[in-house]
Parts: sequence; structure tokens; C-alpha cells
Amino acid sequence: MARHAYLTMKTPEEARTIWFDRLEELNVSPGEENIPLSAALHRVISRPVEALRSSPAFHGAAMDGVAVLAEDTFTASTRTPLRLEIGKKAFWINTGHPLPSGCNAVIMVEHLNVEDGGAAVVTERAAFPWQHVRKLGEDMVATEIILPPGVEIGPSELGALACAGVLRPTVFRKPKVAIIPSGSEIVSLEEAREEDLRAGRALPEFNSLVFSAMIRDAGGLPETRSIVPDDPQAIAAAISEAVAEGADLIMMNAGSSAGSRDYTPDVIAGMGEVLVHGVAVMPGKPTVLGVVRACGREVPAIGTPGYPVSGIVAVEEFVLPLLAHWQKRHVRRREFMQAVPCNPLPSRPGMEERVRVKLGLVDDTCFAVPLPRGAGTVTSLSRADGIIRIARDCEGINAGEKVEVELLRSREQIEGALLIIGSHDNSLDLMDSLLRRSHPGFSLTSAHVGSLGGLLALKKGQCHLTGSHLLDGATGVYNRAAIREHLKGEPAILVHLVDREQGFIVMPGNPLAIRDFRDLCRDGDSAVRFINRQRGSGTRVLLDYELRRLGLSPSRISGYRDEEYTHMNVAAAVLSGRADAGLGVRSAAVALKLDFIPVGIEEYDLVIPLRYAQDRRILALLEVIRSAEFKRRVDAMGGYGTSRTGNILWEYHGN
Amino acid sequence: MARHAYLTMKTPEEARTIWFDRLEELNVSPGEENIPLSAALHRVISRPVEALRSSPAFHGAAMDGVAVLAEDTFTASTRTPLRLEIGKKAFWINTGHPLPSGCNAVIMVEHLNVEDGGAAVVTERAAFPWQHVRKLGEDMVATEIILPPGVEIGPSELGALACAGVLRPTVFRKPKVAIIPSGSEIVSLEEAREEDLRAGRALPEFNSLVFSAMIRDAGGLPETRSIVPDDPQAIAAAISEAVAEGADLIMMNAGSSAGSRDYTPDVIAGMGEVLVHGVAVMPGKPTVLGVVRACGREVPAIGTPGYPVSGIVAVEEFVLPLLAHWQKRHVRRREFMQAVPCNPLPSRPGMEERVRVKLGLVDDTCFAVPLPRGAGTVTSLSRADGIIRIARDCEGINAGEKVEVELLRSREQIEGALLIIGSHDNSLDLMDSLLRRSHPGFSLTSAHVGSLGGLLALKKGQCHLTGSHLLDGATGVYNRAAIREHLKGEPAILVHLVDREQGFIVMPGNPLAIRDFRDLCRDGDSAVRFINRQRGSGTRVLLDYELRRLGLSPSRISGYRDEEYTHMNVAAAVLSGRADAGLGVRSAAVALKLDFIPVGIEEYDLVIPLRYAQDRRILALLEVIRSAEFKRRVDAMGGYGTSRTGNILWEYHGN
Repeated sequence: MARHAYLTMKTPEEARTIWFDRLEELNVSPGEENIPLSAALHRVISRPVEALRSSPAFHGAAMDGVAVLAEDTFTASTRTPLRLEIGKKAFWINTGHPLPSGCNAVIMVEHLNVEDGGAAVVTERAAFPWQHVRKLGEDMVATEIILPPGVEIGPSELGALACAGVLRPTVFRKPKVAIIPSGSEIVSLEEAREEDLRAGRALPEFNSLVFSAMIRDAGGLPETRSIVPDDPQAIAAAISEAVAEGADLIMMNAGSSAGSRDYTPDVIAGMGEVLVHGVAVMPGKPTVLGVVRACGREVPAIGTPGYPVSGIVAVEEFVLPLLAHWQKRHVRRREFMQAVPCNPLPSRPGMEERVRVKLGLVDDTCFAVPLPRGAGTVTSLSRADGIIRIARDCEGINAGEKVEVELLRSREQIEGALLIIGSHDNSLDLMDSLLRRSHPGFSLTSAHVGSLGGLLALKKGQCHLTGSHLLDGATGVYNRAAIREHLKGEPAILVHLVDREQGFIVMPGNPLAIRDFRDLCRDGDSAVRFINRQRGSGTRVLLDYELRRLGLSPSRISGYRDEEYTHMNVAAAVLSGRADAGLGVRSAAVALKLDFIPVGIEEYDLVIPLRYAQDRRILALLEVIRSAEFKRRVDAMGGYGTSRTGNILWEYHGN
Repeated sequence: MARHAYLTMKTPEEARTIWFDRLEELNVSPGEENIPLSAALHRVISRPVEALRSSPAFHGAAMDGVAVLAEDTFTASTRTPLRLEIGKKAFWINTGHPLPSGCNAVIMVEHLNVEDGGAAVVTERAAFPWQHVRKLGEDMVATEIILPPGVEIGPSELGALACAGVLRPTVFRKPKVAIIPSGSEIVSLEEAREEDLRAGRALPEFNSLVFSAMIRDAGGLPETRSIVPDDPQAIAAAISEAVAEGADLIMMNAGSSAGSRDYTPDVIAGMGEVLVHGVAVMPGKPTVLGVVRACGREVPAIGTPGYPVSGIVAVEEFVLPLLAHWQKRHVRRREFMQAVPCNPLPSRPGMEERVRVKLGLVDDTCFAVPLPRGAGTVTSLSRADGIIRIARDCEGINAGEKVEVELLRSREQIEGALLIIGSHDNSLDLMDSLLRRSHPGFSLTSAHVGSLGGLLALKKGQCHLTGSHLLDGATGVYNRAAIREHLKGEPAILVHLVDREQGFIVMPGNPLAIRDFRDLCRDGDSAVRFINRQRGSGTRVLLDYELRRLGLSPSRISGYRDEEYTHMNVAAAVLSGRADAGLGVRSAAVALKLDFIPVGIEEYDLVIPLRYAQDRRILALLEVIRSAEFKRRVDAMGGYGTSRTGNILWEYHGN
């Protein structure tokens, strides 16, 4: 298996400078064009725009009233009211209309007495010259520069251009970005057949959709071209064709790494030059930057990694800055906020690492819950509220250490979010959806660490509430003992969310005929491969409680140490054949059309510190939980009881 | 002239609540639709989206290497390396490919020794189960909610939808907004003939262009309909037609005020109900909100004021929030910053007032320079960096008082701006344009208060530099005496910008045969109407110096007290026939094709405090000033000398 070596690894900034400098040398840029105003929104002015006409184009009335020559009115006062004959010394005028010649002021209708059925008016005060008059050129004078280059045309700029008579402004041409997806197992989204995906025979291509959207938002003109197999000749041909059709930038995805089938670097080198291969950022490392020559043109080319999260980093670090560079602009910097990670974030020195996080503002501290770092984890993109950058020279960030986080959502969205850390239940996502719909601006951000982890996070002030189903083995009562033990000093209310059926999730038909906990300990041919939940989760507590009660040793269960973090992932492990059984809630089994062997009903509650009980977001959440719609939809998931949902079960006074 | 009374004036928030509540009662909303992913960017999810497939769809390799059953490798160590035969206990695998059945781990190729030409591999460490494996459902499990309602679909959300197999998400339908321009003197932009505009016979209609852009950016579907004359029947017919064609919101512009030709309120009342007429905000007051009934439907209607700045406020306060409300979202709040107005901002109590300002961050204070408040001033929109709101119960803001300013530009753009307050010269706009082009991110914001005002602002630390041409009558030398007098304690450098010709700006052909300052004092039929510059401006100093030198009294000059703030406005006053002559620079006369009678050459310099002399933005500006392009383009404007441009003339040590 041949391995291509990465060139010396550059930081993203170094890599960008090398690429841009070379493009400047080669004088590569998409140029300018004239466009009508109807197509100008969000385009970027490329040269100073001069007004073609003055505005106002005449001396006009700024008020309804009469136009006069101010000098005619200088004698007017309350003691010596002045009568002006309409049509001689005064002329009715409406706002916006031009002054009759010889006039230089307007007296408001409110300050006039009308006499003789409108034939004359009387004023008790003198008008000063140019009073209530919009003078010619007051707003802009023809030939003045009204917009400088580099300005993005927004609604106001459209108004200024139109007002100045500039109906076809000169703007930077939109850079045409050809996105060429490559990979022999890649199929288009529309052609992806379910059975091929499940068998791993096909991978649906959607990076081009994501990249196109990013490029479009940055003022580029993306064009996704046909999928090319892993074949150097085919890749080179696809690049040549895109150049021939006018691409300003070639973007290969993927094949940019250093594996045996990663042809992008060699193809770019063969058609021109590779300037950078490998960038010191995770994810995003296997990026290649260069220039290709075809059809007598030199065109920048980038090879981006195939994993979506890595690919996005490459687009953000190189493609968007190039588009901005061509339009003489800066990439708009995102807002930053100080945050405290809930967990330590280890990192490999030598590489800058970007960790996507969810955020929750608890009291005045913004807590960051890291999302999975896998470069293929698409939900880490759609769920993220922010990004923490761990510097190249750093071994990571400790829990509790303050760091800067780059915001992917607005500050208000983060301020409107309730952070729930604790046990996982499928109804939490439903709560979030209903909360957002009934109270726009509010949302529920959840992180799954199990019931015990949730109580500990709550005690540390890292979240607004927690979801818990901790069985006290001694009393058979849920949550109260654990709250007394772990929340000491923090008065709280215990709100019932749901009763839920726990049981074994097994393949349809229950092929191993599992009936109770004893079956997990079978030996030999009928042995059961179990998939467990993590320590501290309520489900794990339930399992261990039952095993103890029945005198069964965990060591007898195959897979006892194989852990997942959510009910859905337990069900997925069973569905995939990785395990024969797991303990979880019925709704997870129902969702994936698996069988379910109930072992009992448990209580799942929300624990809310008393000091948040009147928080607007909490009140909205309780409203949602108590709504008929929430109960109806929870019931529909299967295995839930909602007769007590929303009831306050207990007030804990902190001792 | 009949006047319709405004209903009791509501605050914008009260007005919004009344309107929205009524629409909720009537159950008016555009509903939902399913759309393909290719059209989904920036659309808003309307109901919880569940994953249709799990991702990954199989257990796949996360690294290149060999797939194994982890349990087979448990004996491997550096002392007891383990040999695995390819095709039996180990299988070559590439990243992303599915594990062969029976395998549950991947060993990276970097950790293997290949033997027998690839027939076997040797590992020195045990693999743990699921090592380097992306497990089925690790990212998302089918049926899980992946996106809640109210979320705007961005690039990441597109990825999540595609990955989940949701190729036609359900989103809120784009509200269709019919914009109906009205006014008998209004013509479309394309049909506006220059001579009609100048005579005030026609007003070009461009509000619809501005409003459409705002509505499009907010996720609406604007449609500008034909211009309607000021006629109640015609207006009602246009509204009915728009409703018949499916409008979700009717927007009349203008005729919403209380004048004799403002038919919008009555037409809306006649077709349904007026809920609000008149809002306590300036500009924006004459807004009307209601509901019309036509074609069996109830449709919200808004009448917006005709002046662009007022109209925009009405769109921001009512139209955009309604679009957001329909999509279960909040209007994204702009960023705020603390700023200090350079001038006092008086305001009328009882009305909230919005003042658009330019901003400059000098040392650590953000200074706000108010732009003209006229509701028709389009450049106050395109030039504004921010908006200061003066509360309803407040009589204004004092100079130096700290206020919150709503940012219309990014913080970085404001940080990159140099603020020059002082004398006006046409070359300043050119400097700004060239600076932006050569140094993206930097810009020059200028405010014109005259040379003396500029020096005073510089001394107060309100700007980064000033432009000055103050003649010392005693010595005939420019600027040095004024700097010694007004900048005491602030060391500075004096950088030459341009020499420029001052003279009389007169109508083409110089019909009054003006030759020198004595001609301004003529009496009788040959008298000259003069347009002056404001006190403190260098040009005014020059005029007064010459009058004194010649023993002429200002009282002999007609129009001596009629003041303008820029050379261009002086030229415009002459062009419009408001005055016969003004004193100004040749370039202003050239720009408007007027005649110019030179009276002398003056020196226009930049004054830069020494403590900014090494500021990156100042260095960039000096680079621009010294460039051949700047000099060439200044020369082309006419009346300028650039032989000393960019030279440091003098270093002032502060005493």
C-alpha cells in the first residue's frame, strides 16, 4: 500500500498566503461586470460609483403648505399678521413638489389661517429662507462618489444607486467554482438505493450540496459537476472540462489525502503545481492547494477532504477567503464569547484542533458541551452552537478553563436556550421542537451523560435542569435519594416527565427467546451478546440493581463492558447485529421496528433548581410539558405513561 | 385642505402586538410546503424532521488498515507480535468501507508490518473492540429528530437532511408580499426622463427595490406591482387584484399619512379594518396597519410612508417581524456598541427618534457623527454605520453622553475605519475608495465641519486625523498658526495633501461677469446673490481675509449669511439658480460643468497626531496618498496640484 508523503505541514494562514501570493503573481481573478439593479442585491461594488444625477433634482417642499419668498414675510408677527394672496405671493404646495420660481420657503399649513374660502392665507410668523425646503443636491450632487469599492450592495445601497441614476453598477464578477465529486463508491443523492447504502456498496454524495451553499452565501457561483471515479485520467479530464467551461476555481472532493487511491495531489501536480499539501488543522488536514493550467488558462485548484466536517473546514479556510480576496473584502468574522467546557478537551500538539460544541448560558457562565469530534459526524455540524479552537502548541483544555468560542448562532439564540444535561429520553427532542414552535427564541439543548452525571452537572451549576431516573434500591423510589445525596444545598423541584417501560430490545421475533435478566448470563451456543449503557445512567443502575437482586455477577454477561450513551444507539447496536440484546425504553425499539420484552415501569423526572423555577424559559417549558399535544405525541411513541406528566412530585429544600 | 386625524399614537411594539394579535385571531398565515434540497437553503423548518435512515448505514472503517476481530488480537504485544494472515484473520480495508462480517475493529496501516509481499501482517498491539470503526447509527439513528422547527436551513442543515435521507423537507411557505407603489407623479426607474425629474414633474420610484431586497433577505417573496395613481378606486382595485393573485401581505407605498391625497388609510378601512394609524417613531410615523378582505380571504395590509428612510423603518418594525412571526422565529437583533455622539442630538419628546450615524473608534471610544435626519435623505442610509435610538420620553442626547448604537456594519469594519473630521475636499472620497481597494478592511469615514471644527475635534480626541486649509492672515502660511493655537499639547505631523485652486463658481459663460471679490458687493440690477460656506471653514476664512484686505464689509454681500457645508453643495446652489456665485474649489465647478474664476492657490493638508503616525491604517492611508494612481486621479479632477502630495511639511512638538 503506497503512501504519499505530505509536504511540510503549514498552518492554515501560511497555506493561504502561499496560495494567494502565487495567484497574485499569475494575475488570476474573475474580473468585473455591469449588472442591472434588479440583480445587484449582495453583489460587491468593484470601483467608486459616482452619482449620475443630483438628488433632490429641484428645490422641493418638505411639508404641505404654501410656498413663499421668505423676504416677503419678514414683517409678519403675532401683532402684525401678514395676509398673502394665493396665486400672487403664496402658492399651495404638497410635500415633494417643486417650489414655484421666485419662492424660497414653505410655510406649513398648520401655521396658516385660511381666509376667503382659500383665496388668501394669514401667517403670524416670518419664514426664513429655505425653511421646509429640500434643496437641490441636498442629498447627493452629481459626480460625487456615493459608494466606494468593496461595499456589498444591500437594500440601502440599492436605494442610493437608484437615487443616483446608476442603473447598471460595476461589480466584481461572481467567481465560478466547479465542484468535482470523486470516488468510485460515490453516488448522487437521488440515485442512492437504500440496500446499496446499507451494504456499504454506495455512499451518497452530499458534500457538494453543503459546499455549494457555503459558496453561494459567500457570493460565489457554485456548479456541481458529474461524479468522477478514482482514476487519474478521468479526474484530469474532468478538471480540463471545467476549466474549458469557464471555472474560476476548481474544487476536487475528495482524494486529497495521502492514501493509495488519493489521486488529487498528483493530478494537480501533473496539470500545474501543488503549493501546499497537508495543513496543520484537525479536522481538515488532508487539503491540497495548487494551480492547474488548461485551455491556456491558469486556474486555482483545491483538493478538499472527503469527510464532511474536514471538507467544511477546508472551504472555510481556503475557498471562502479566496472569494473574499477576489472581491477585495474580508471574510466576516463570527462573534466570539467566553465559555467553559464541561469536559476536558485533550488535543494533539502540532495541530490546531477545532471542536464543535453546544452552548448553554447558565447564570452568567457560558458552558460548552463538546460534540463528537469525528470528521464524518454530520450532526456535529447541525447541532453545534459554536467552535472552540485548540491552539497548535497546546495539549488541550482542562474542564473549567475559560476559552473563546466562535459562535455559529446568534447570541440571543444562545441566551434563549435551556441546557439540560442528564439522562437521555426521546421525548426531550420533542420538548425542544414544541418549545421552539410555541415560544420562538427559546429552545432546549440537551447533552446525554446519564442521570448521575446530570445531577453532578446541576450541582456544579453547569446546566439549568437535568433529566433523571435513578432508582433507590433500598426504597424502590426514584430520584429523591439521589437528589438528597448529590444536590445538597441546592433547593429544587422534582417535576414528573413520564413513566416509561424499560425492557430488552431484541431482534424482531426475539430469536434468542430472551425473557428476563437471567437469560443474559447464558453460556455456550445460546449465549447472548449484550450491549450496555454507560455507568451513571439510570438504565445501568436498573440493570445493576436487578443483577444484584437476582444474585447474578456482571462478569457472566458477554458485552457488559460494551457501552453506548443513548437508548437509540443501543437499539441501533441490536439492529446492526453487533449485539443480541440491550436494556432500554420501548420507544427506541418501536422506532427501529425491533422487538421489546418489558421488564418494568420506571419514573423519568426533571430536576429543576428552585432558583430557575420562575425563569421565563422554564415556565415556557413547563407549559409545553403540560400541553395536550406533548402528551399525545409522547403516548404515540409507545411505552410511555403520561398521566402524571408535568406534576410537581416533590420540593427539595436543600437538606 | 382636509386633514385626517391620526388615531391615538402607539409605540411600534404596541402597534405590532395589536396587528399580530388580530392576525392570530383571524388565523392568517401562509402555511407550509415540501421542497427539494436544492431549493432549501435559508428556508425555515416548520415541523420536527426525523431521520429516514441511520448514518453510518453500516459498521465502517474509520482508517485505512486491516479489519480484524478484536478478540483475535488480545495476545499481541511488543514482546509477542501477532501474525495475521490476510484473507483469514485480517482483511485490507480503506476508510469508509464496511467491515467484513465477523470483524469488529480496524488496525491502522501505520501500526502494521507487512510480510510475505502482503500475504500477512504483524501487529505488536492488541486491538480493542470497535477501535477505528464508525458504528452503524453513531451519527444519527433512523426516526431520531435531527432538526427542530424554526431552524433556518444553512449549509450544515443541508448536510444533515441529506445524510438523513430527507430529500424534501417541510418548510414554511415563503410569504408573498405584494408591494404596490402609489402616487400620481411616481414613475418607474426605467421610465424616469431626466428633464421630467429636474422639473419636478416625475419622481423615480425606487422604494420598491429597497423594500423587495429587505423582504427577500428576510425570507419573503416580494412582488412589485404596477404603479397606481392617487385614486381610491384604483388603489382598492390594485389591492383586490394582488389578493386574488395570492398575496399573503399587501404593502402600499405611500399615501399612508394624513394629507389630502393620502388615501391608503381610508381604502384599507373600506376593505376591512384599520388597526393602527400613526406610530410614535421618527422617521416612520405615518404608518397604517390593518386587514383587508377580498376574494373571500383576509389579508394583512400595511401602508408605509413614501420617504425612503421612513419607509425602511416601517418595513423593519412591521413587515420583517411579521415574516419572522409567520416562520416562528425572531428578527435577528443587530449588534450594539457604546458610542459618544460628537454633537448634541435634540429630539421631540413623545416620539422615539432614530438617528443614523457614522462611527469611528478613536483610542477606545466609539464616536458617532450624526447624518442628516431628513426622511428623504437616501445617503443617510447608505453612509450610516449605526443607528442611535432616542427614547420617547427623552428630549435628546447631549454631546459626550454615552449611548447604545445599533450596528449596521460589522465590528471589524468599524475597527478598520479611520475617522477624519474637518474640511471637505473631493479627494477624500477618492482616498477612501483607493484605501478600501488596496487594503480590504480599512476605510476612511469623513465628516465635514470645516477646518477649525476639525482641529477642535482632533484636540478633543474625537477623530484620527483632520483635513485643514486655514490661512494665517498675518504670515500668509497655512495651518501652522492654527495648529499651534488649537492643538497645544498634542504633537502632530502636517502632511501635504494637495494644492488647490480656489475661485468663484458661476454659471457657464459667467453671465454676471464676476472677476474679483469687489464684484460681490455690487448694488442694484447687477447685484450678485452669493452662497457662502459655514463659519470655521477654510474657504470662509479665505473670503473674510480677502474682504478685510480689500476693506469690504460682509454686510454688502447679498447671501453672505446663506451657508452651505461643502464645495459640491455650493456648486449645486449655483447650478440651481439659488445663487449667482460661491467661493469654492475648481473640481466642484468642473464636476457640475460650471464656470470657474480662480482667485488663488491654497494649501490643503492633513493633520495627524504623532501617536497615530504608526497606526496601520494611517500607514496604509499615507501609502495611498503617495501612490501614482491617487495623484493621477486627483489631477484629473481639475484645479489640483500634487507635486508635494504626501510630503511631511512640518512636525509639531505640541508647544
